[in-house]
Amino acid sequence: MKKLIIAILYALLAAVSVFAEVKTIPIKWEKVAPGVWKAQVGKSESLTLLGAAGTKPAIEALRGLPVVAFPLNRKEIEARQWDWKTALRFPLGLDEEIYGLGVDFKMMRRTGSVFQLHVDHWGGISGRTHAPVPLYISTRGYAVLFNSARFLQMNVGLGVRLAAGQRPPVIDRTTGKGWAALPRSDSIEALANAEGMEVLVFAGPTPMDAIRRYNLYSGGGALPPKWGLGFLARTPTRYTSEQALNEIGEFRKNGIPLDMLGLEPGWHDQAYPCSFEWDSKRFADPGKFLAEVERQHVRVNLWFNPYVSPTAPLYRKLLPFAGTHLVWNGIVPDYTMPRARKIFADHLEREVVSVNPKAVGGFKIDEVDGYDRYLWPDTATFPSGRDGEQLRQTYGLLVQRLVYDLFRRQNRRTLGQVRGTNAGASPFPFVIYNDNYAFDEYITAVGNSGFAGVLWSPEVRGGKGEEMLRRTQAVVLSPLALFNGWATDDKLWTHPEVKEHIRDAILLRMRLLPYLYTTFAQYHYQGTPVVRPMPLVPGFKTPGQQVSGQLDSTANPYAIGRVNEVKDQYMLGDALLVAPMPPGVTSRKVVLPAGRWYDFYTGKLAGEDQIIEVSTPLSKIPLFVRDGSLVPMIEERQWSPEPNEILPLEIRHYGELPGKLSLYDDDGETFNYEKGDYSRTQLSAAQNADGNWQGSVTPDKNGTKWHYSQVSWTFMTSR
Amino acid sequence: MKKLIIAILYALLAAVSVFAEVKTIPIKWEKVAPGVWKAQVGKSESLTLLGAAGTKPAIEALRGLPVVAFPLNRKEIEARQWDWKTALRFPLGLDEEIYGLGVDFKMMRRTGSVFQLHVDHWGGISGRTHAPVPLYISTRGYAVLFNSARFLQMNVGLGVRLAAGQRPPVIDRTTGKGWAALPRSDSIEALANAEGMEVLVFAGPTPMDAIRRYNLYSGGGALPPKWGLGFLARTPTRYTSEQALNEIGEFRKNGIPLDMLGLEPGWHDQAYPCSFEWDSKRFADPGKFLAEVERQHVRVNLWFNPYVSPTAPLYRKLLPFAGTHLVWNGIVPDYTMPRARKIFADHLEREVVSVNPKAVGGFKIDEVDGYDRYLWPDTATFPSGRDGEQLRQTYGLLVQRLVYDLFRRQNRRTLGQVRGTNAGASPFPFVIYNDNYAFDEYITAVGNSGFAGVLWSPEVRGGKGEEMLRRTQAVVLSPLALFNGWATDDKLWTHPEVKEHIRDAILLRMRLLPYLYTTFAQYHYQGTPVVRPMPLVPGFKTPGQQVSGQLDSTANPYAIGRVNEVKDQYMLGDALLVAPMPPGVTSRKVVLPAGRWYDFYTGKLAGEDQIIEVSTPLSKIPLFVRDGSLVPMIEERQWSPEPNEILPLEIRHYGELPGKLSLYDDDGETFNYEKGDYSRTQLSAAQNADGNWQGSVTPDKNGTKWHYSQVSWTFMTSR
Repeated sequence: MKKLIIAILYALLAAVSVFAEVKTIPIKWEKVAPGVWKAQVGKSESLTLLGAAGTKPAIEALRGLPVVAFPLNRKEIEARQWDWKTALRFPLGLDEEIYGLGVDFKMMRRTGSVFQLHVDHWGGISGRTHAPVPLYISTRGYAVLFNSARFLQMNVGLGVRLAAGQRPPVIDRTTGKGWAALPRSDSIEALANAEGMEVLVFAGPTPMDAIRRYNLYSGGGALPPKWGLGFLARTPTRYTSEQALNEIGEFRKNGIPLDMLGLEPGWHDQAYPCSFEWDSKRFADPGKFLAEVERQHVRVNLWFNPYVSPTAPLYRKLLPFAGTHLVWNGIVPDYTMPRARKIFADHLEREVVSVNPKAVGGFKIDEVDGYDRYLWPDTATFPSGRDGEQLRQTYGLLVQRLVYDLFRRQNRRTLGQVRGTNAGASPFPFVIYNDNYAFDEYITAVGNSGFAGVLWSPEVRGGKGEEMLRRTQAVVLSPLALFNGWATDDKLWTHPEVKEHIRDAILLRMRLLPYLYTTFAQYHYQGTPVVRPMPLVPGFKTPGQQVSGQLDSTANPYAIGRVNEVKDQYMLGDALLVAPMPPGVTSRKVVLPAGRWYDFYTGKLAGEDQIIEVSTPLSKIPLFVRDGSLVPMIEERQWSPEPNEILPLEIRHYGELPGKLSLYDDDGETFNYEKGDYSRTQLSAAQNADGNWQGSVTPDKNGTKWHYSQVSWTFMTSR
Repeated sequence: MKKLIIAILYALLAAVSVFAEVKTIPIKWEKVAPGVWKAQVGKSESLTLLGAAGTKPAIEALRGLPVVAFPLNRKEIEARQWDWKTALRFPLGLDEEIYGLGVDFKMMRRTGSVFQLHVDHWGGISGRTHAPVPLYISTRGYAVLFNSARFLQMNVGLGVRLAAGQRPPVIDRTTGKGWAALPRSDSIEALANAEGMEVLVFAGPTPMDAIRRYNLYSGGGALPPKWGLGFLARTPTRYTSEQALNEIGEFRKNGIPLDMLGLEPGWHDQAYPCSFEWDSKRFADPGKFLAEVERQHVRVNLWFNPYVSPTAPLYRKLLPFAGTHLVWNGIVPDYTMPRARKIFADHLEREVVSVNPKAVGGFKIDEVDGYDRYLWPDTATFPSGRDGEQLRQTYGLLVQRLVYDLFRRQNRRTLGQVRGTNAGASPFPFVIYNDNYAFDEYITAVGNSGFAGVLWSPEVRGGKGEEMLRRTQAVVLSPLALFNGWATDDKLWTHPEVKEHIRDAILLRMRLLPYLYTTFAQYHYQGTPVVRPMPLVPGFKTPGQQVSGQLDSTANPYAIGRVNEVKDQYMLGDALLVAPMPPGVTSRKVVLPAGRWYDFYTGKLAGEDQIIEVSTPLSKIPLFVRDGSLVPMIEERQWSPEPNEILPLEIRHYGELPGKLSLYDDDGETFNYEKGDYSRTQLSAAQNADGNWQGSVTPDKNGTKWHYSQVSWTFMTSR
């Protein structure tokens, strides 16, 4: 009895201690858009991710999605605060799987993992990545965004709570059966060192719909200029204007398409840190240089990192906005401050873009991710009062925003690259990249980006024959087709044994422009990701069982099992299933989802709802088309169409099902589409009463901007 | 002029913003012990590392070190606070190198690195390690401890400050010479999410003196029982008492020494989570079992992890102290609360230790480190009001403390193992270990632990012939000689081709008892680490130059250089230089510091201040002795001496210099030495007038406890 009383007293004492220290915060959900709810837990932060991005939700477009109720049980969502920490708990059902939470390069499924979301160069550590977007997507058909500019500690289905309604069974590991090294928790938990956090919930009903709502709430996906869907090649660092022009000539001579030429640090007169002034020796006459570039139907994309050199004229103007620490001896301006953004953007506009607005297509924003050893420490503070952590999580967003706005003010679209970004980036036409170069990781990230509202390309950086070819074949079927020659002498035509195949791959890229552009239009207007990872593909079921772990005293001391994931293939748009062939591999498995799938090149049936073994010759990348798809294509060409160029259009139909496609078009370079200056032409294909296939084109009566003529139909399967 | 005014106004605005948000805190240093100063920046935390360890500084012993002034320029130490963050900056000179900051398994030198100190199982990420002790040692001869139970973000010589007096030169990377990817900063910065931090400074004058002060301030290094310096073997998980006794018999039969037998999870009736009750089938009669173990001159060491099973009688008593989250479905008691520690310790004492206090030698405290996926999330909170972060950084310390105190109350010394620890652990006789098993990393950690006031052993877990042998040869020349057979059927006698050599290695361990015990006495009374990494060895200079980095577009895009470190050898005590031979390697380089060094086995001169190439046969591990060393040894034996056993002593002299040694002895199992119950016998060896070597033994007139007789001298070099 005495022991019972003592136990009760201690329990009360413990309970009082907990209540005195840790507070449970009631959460008030506010509907902010169709199918989108927001809550502010604790104090508002002066900086959030969507705030840094300058997010303007596409409310009208959101109305186009199904009407749905709040997709969770509100009672199961908890917020706790203690000291300066805010912890959120969302429910996780036994059958539920979680995706997203940043572009990981190894895994897609997040259930059963713990990591910290922290902008960084990917280096193998989960959560530390270029786009650690704190958005998770549930297979139950909703998504949650932790709109916090802090490092976020995430526990996804790990960390069983004592108070949980249903806890996993307790099994003796020594003799019991079914002991689990990682007992599944009923929660997804997020923790920030902050006195408050904003969180948003996006309804479905499907997971894809939830992603669409997130992308649309962020302002809609990026719609790049048409020329951004062509081909980009970056030159070696020290190239001069003469060498750059010569490079364009080499492309033309070798018959390899080129739209954008990337100039590397050498265009600056000082780099690392940067001066943002044309180098007077390497680029003595930028105007003349750019005029010639323009004449060649090319645009330049200029590299920079945002760390300003003391030698730069820009330095003096940005010094009042500098943080306490330097990066590569350059100042780090506080771009959370609008005035600082304006100074930088004005400089870029005046010194660079306005030299030739048509020929300066965009910028490559480097080194806004990490690693930690290069960037400012967490101890850095900035004039706005914000600190190293907050700037680290948002710097990429802020610089993208100021560059995007710069071009927008000129009513021009840009396409660029960036190495660090975060939530809210969906409208920004910057594609991410990194130095790691592992093929399988590069491909995983292509699909995984579809969960994060960002774009990733597996750029080609060199490599001997087969490697350069296989990587080129993959990159042309990704958001940005590019070759990055910054630190190599190799060119796309260097290896004779693969040169023709490389050219063919890039020519295929050019042919696919109408298809890619319509896909990006889906991204912009409906929020549908350009690349769809397999878990988002209708009819896809993860093949294979959970594989049990074998105990090994050093390699696997907790006998952890493994889950098969299909990460080495993805869909590009509605029709194309891309299965890149790694270098050195002669055959690979491809998982074909439910329904029939056809070989892109021949139109022949490849399979249905099955795993096939594919051996393609060097000349081809495994590419499959969904039954009934229409794939609009133009002819092979060496550069993207000019805004008013009219082109013959070939529409390919695959399979045996009828096809429908809403083909999008606009002027391809301005924002006039926002005022209705675009068209959606309805294409359809079906068999007539005699069984013959016929295609029809229904023009958009209210539409403007249609650049196709001589529409021809190719029935790939039926011919 | 107008631009200048605007610039000044913005600068003022920026300055005001900074001053309004970020506060510089004056630091008041208080001398707390000879050569030790402490400062409290901001608010006191309710939990610190030294607080968790229950640190009692050895003030008297500290008086034995040289009198020195505060070793830094106070003006160069800065503390800043903003929001809930505390940042400390210490100066770093251009010539200064930094060591310590946790037991890293890859590098020793910390200058030019950034990482977060976070208790975890080592997995390749700097800072995430079993003993992330926030103590750094400067080659200028002082040490600094950040006594914080928070995750600590460290920037060591990285992150140049805008306000720095001297900044690195700004060089254009494109064309300049000497561009540095990692410009060196003038600071060591530490950041915690906390409203305050305690920091201590330990003076030298040498780096080793600074480490001594830290160890002594922590209470002096651990002095294990003599039997803890013998040999430990851990049995397979499911072993019964019969099998355990049989294992002892096999050791005896094979002539391989054994002092401690480790019982793995199988002694519990439930494990993962644990019940802390003897399993009624496997250990039906613990009393009888332990009596037989004792009769065989062995003690058991019992494994546990501290996560309490709901099936355990202990559960009900500890439930009021449970944190909000479970680990392997067991509760995590808040051991920052003394009552909780008492309940657990009382249980262990009553149910386990008191069954046979002599035969229960200690415990192995597992899984108090990580990984994150196994332990409680950072969102966990505990009845004391402390949270997941604070408990994570201190849990290993707290459990060591309660186990150590349990035995201390019985006036018995213990030796154990632990997988997570932190600052303040110097007096705790627990050796760390992990699952990673990479040979080179295992050896690096042996030396690196000397910078952290902890003990690490490269335990043997199996392996085929040569591997098992080479690892055994290394482990017998480390703090704890052990074989961990928890998950293997292999035994030390399994491989006939190496069985004899393995036995010889362990017999050598037994012979070295007086030498090892005196070395540990140095650790306890003078604070000198048992293992000295090469940078702490007098006469050692890091060989080789900084190696410049070669630019590679993917493998090394910033052309990072490399610094040679000598991490694959270390000194064990004053005399022995150990250079383990990795498995599969037939020859290796050994760096011999200044002075002459002799082969341990033959006494022959091996070299002087040079790098030698060593090929030893399988039967030997490369082992060298400093000129003039005296190495006291006993005869080969199968178990450690009983407390009152008197043994013949052989004293080996090496080299040509005269030798002196203060040989320590006590009863080897109680704490009576604290009351003066020990002896220090002075040994010396020198050549007489005729050039003959003679040894002399000067007994300690005031000393008690001297267990040696028949002292013989072997002049290894001169014979």
